[in-house]
Amino acid sequence: MVRAIGVDPGSRFTGFGIVEGDGFRLKYIHHGTIRLPASRPFAERLKMIFEQLGAAIGSYEPQCMAVEEVFFAKNVKSALSLGQARGAVLLAGICAGLSIHEYSALAVKQAVAGYGRAPKEQVGAMVQRLFRIDSEIEPNAADALAIAVCHLNTYSSKNRWKLPDGK
Amino acid sequence: MVRAIGVDPGSRFTGFGIVEGDGFRLKYIHHGTIRLPASRPFAERLKMIFEQLGAAIGSYEPQCMAVEEVFFAKNVKSALSLGQARGAVLLAGICAGLSIHEYSALAVKQAVAGYGRAPKEQVGAMVQRLFRIDSEIEPNAADALAIAVCHLNTYSSKNRWKLPDGK
Repeated sequence: MVRAIGVDPGSRFTGFGIVEGDGFRLKYIHHGTIRLPASRPFAERLKMIFEQLGAAIGSYEPQCMAVEEVFFAKNVKSALSLGQARGAVLLAGICAGLSIHEYSALAVKQAVAGYGRAPKEQVGAMVQRLFRIDSEIEPNAADALAIAVCHLNTYSSKNRWKLPDGK
Repeated sequence: MVRAIGVDPGSRFTGFGIVEGDGFRLKYIHHGTIRLPASRPFAERLKMIFEQLGAAIGSYEPQCMAVEEVFFAKNVKSALSLGQARGAVLLAGICAGLSIHEYSALAVKQAVAGYGRAPKEQVGAMVQRLFRIDSEIEPNAADALAIAVCHLNTYSSKNRWKLPDGK
């Protein structure tokens, strides 16, 4: 049984989702969104991400963290903001001793929607259906749950077929 | 007397410099460079920045942190890397309770070299001369010392002329 926290970093909303998998079944544990008030200095917002994510990790004890790879952004300014938020997310994970895993946006969408070019809304709807969650999930948290699912699927398919003793 | 740590974040080298000022004189305290091996996963490098900067703050007890504002980068990819490193730097400061101050590259160069368009090598030479340091200073650490000087100059000129009791 592996418990993973998926995180979708952002400088306004950082979503996280915790999912457990045993190689066959997936179990929803928790999700949430860290809302970062634009009125607060940027460094304080980073602290909020670091602390609130650290608190969620402390409460739900995942063993690993999954995040999306980022290769592009609207412009250099938004890449810098996103980079700073992402830095706080990775630090919260690694300071808690979690292993860090990165997946492309394509792989994440494929994991929950079946194909890589699915629109953002579809990811949310698929995550809701997958875990039988009635209420709408905030988009960043839905993405985060999808990232956790992507990791658990990848992890279990890697391990399910592993022969004992390297045979 | 105010003690400031200036930091120049980078995903390969993060320099820091600690300087004390009483509004008239500046006193060199310490400087160093955190070298981040390219062979290590990025999240581990962020942890090295966070921990080693945290250790320097713990040892030398500055009250405030100064960093350069960043508005541009070579491209989106390097902006993301720089953003992540900068996030780790800001977090190390704010988690230690330091106030965070940002200055433009222009203001930093002006503070040590007298004019804003000074080349990078000149900043190093001016910092060496200012603090009577014989050995060459690694460029990121020299920049970090210049950022600390910029903050202490700005801080003291703001406070030196403040009239008592708001008169």
